[in-house]
Amino acid sequence: MENTDRNLTKHYGCIGKKDRDAILGQRGCVVWFTGLSGSGKSTIAREVESQLAGAGRLVYVLDGDNVRCGLNSDLGFSPEDRRENIRRLGEIAALFADAGIITLAAFISPYRTDRAEARGKVPEGSFIETYIATSLEKCMERDPKGLYQKAKNGEIESMTGIDAPYEEPDNPELTVTPGDETPEQSAKTVIEYLDTNGFLSYRQGGDN
Amino acid sequence: MENTDRNLTKHYGCIGKKDRDAILGQRGCVVWFTGLSGSGKSTIAREVESQLAGAGRLVYVLDGDNVRCGLNSDLGFSPEDRRENIRRLGEIAALFADAGIITLAAFISPYRTDRAEARGKVPEGSFIETYIATSLEKCMERDPKGLYQKAKNGEIESMTGIDAPYEEPDNPELTVTPGDETPEQSAKTVIEYLDTNGFLSYRQGGDN
Repeated sequence: MENTDRNLTKHYGCIGKKDRDAILGQRGCVVWFTGLSGSGKSTIAREVESQLAGAGRLVYVLDGDNVRCGLNSDLGFSPEDRRENIRRLGEIAALFADAGIITLAAFISPYRTDRAEARGKVPEGSFIETYIATSLEKCMERDPKGLYQKAKNGEIESMTGIDAPYEEPDNPELTVTPGDETPEQSAKTVIEYLDTNGFLSYRQGGDN
Repeated sequence: MENTDRNLTKHYGCIGKKDRDAILGQRGCVVWFTGLSGSGKSTIAREVESQLAGAGRLVYVLDGDNVRCGLNSDLGFSPEDRRENIRRLGEIAALFADAGIITLAAFISPYRTDRAEARGKVPEGSFIETYIATSLEKCMERDPKGLYQKAKNGEIESMTGIDAPYEEPDNPELTVTPGDETPEQSAKTVIEYLDTNGFLSYRQGGDN
């Protein structure tokens, strides 16, 4: 009990997001990266994670690697399953933001309504929709997972941008264009937004 | 960019749980409270949360209030839905622990196999199954949500302990008996376990 006995200040009443934000010295939020497969969402999210963790911030990436394989392992790629996939992701991202974490969600999330639904789960102002505006041509050229080639060969269906729609954000908080800049530059854009909008600090009594 | 420019240390390579544990000065884990409805799971979890947050720890309660109503709003109380409920909760709790958070999951979770499955999703040693051993008689007497009365009146079915099974843990890390002690005392037992087992500190290079 050494540590806790020494520091323990009984907190009467419920612990809420503000308490956790204060403990962390930051403001939990969701940066929602959306864009085509191969657009660079995960690369940029990982770069933001790396820079922020290097600066001592608590940041976490939610992406296909840790969610599609776990929580959403029961879901496929039909429109209904994609919708349910994004619904659950929105719920988890909201829980993470509520925990005080700077949450980086990197998913194609092709439908406007689904992204709007995810936005609606977090407090106003703390959902930062970030459009990774890489052209389909560029994504097909990069094709890091070989998915566009498979779609061309008819080996997979419902490939976003090919035979399934991608709805560009109407009014995203941020747009980054990886074709014109390095991942470090794109990450800088995101981090500057977070800093300017007060997510990297916590002021008691402020509008946190 | 004031804050980040000053502190930014580029972290090459992937950020992992150890990095987040180091940032937080604690070790992410899952305390899984299991027990009958009305046994005191949430009360004790909230007391642990209150004490740990008061000591500056990042701690988060997952319970029916924030999960059943959100992520799992599509699920009912059939055995299959209960199983899927606990499966998803196990996945989320594991993500939270991976994020570095001391995660307090408070759910009836009546089946041994489901709890074992949740345990299997986190690194060995970091799943602390905590049995809230309140007798059914005592739970029925307390009946804080009026559910036992409704079950008696035939208004609800599949009430754990009445017409649905509860399987006691065989070998839980902790057993607390709210009938014999205050929530503060029960919380102390949990916090002492966390402290003794190194979850409330982080030592670089150690067996974290």
